[in-house]
Amino acid sequence: MKARIYVTLKNGVLDPQGKAIQHALVALGFDGVDDVRQGKFIELELRETDSVKAKANVEEMCKKLLSNPVIENYSIHIE
Amino acid sequence: MKARIYVTLKNGVLDPQGKAIQHALVALGFDGVDDVRQGKFIELELRETDSVKAKANVEEMCKKLLSNPVIENYSIHIE
Repeated sequence: MKARIYVTLKNGVLDPQGKAIQHALVALGFDGVDDVRQGKFIELELRETDSVKAKANVEEMCKKLLSNPVIENYSIHIE
Repeated sequence: MKARIYVTLKNGVLDPQGKAIQHALVALGFDGVDDVRQGKFIELELRETDSVKAKANVEEMCKKLLSNPVIENYSIHIE
């Protein structure tokens, strides 16, 4: 069973990495970019076969390790 | 117009960051995880309103800056 996790900075939290990408894009001539936010994408291969249990498990992982709930949001997709 | 870009390492390319996450998860007691791969997730806010042009533009950005085509794959979602 596969879990995909998207970790993004919450709105209002400064994203210097995103700003750096935006400046680099402008320097390369791509000037139609208003905003850039960078996040993390994590793919887990789970042994669990029950999708409800898997989601609860991954939720726990996100809270304990994969994201910083103070400044980041996460979303989980199980398939 | 928003573009979401997912950059992942190609299959077969070693992912030390993913391995580190996997070991940390095991250390925390999550032992049902067979594999972890970490990628990047980039969200662009574009001024372009034509989705075909936007996609072509973002494709170009991915090739030139956002991904390393030698070791990474990318996928683009325009909305």
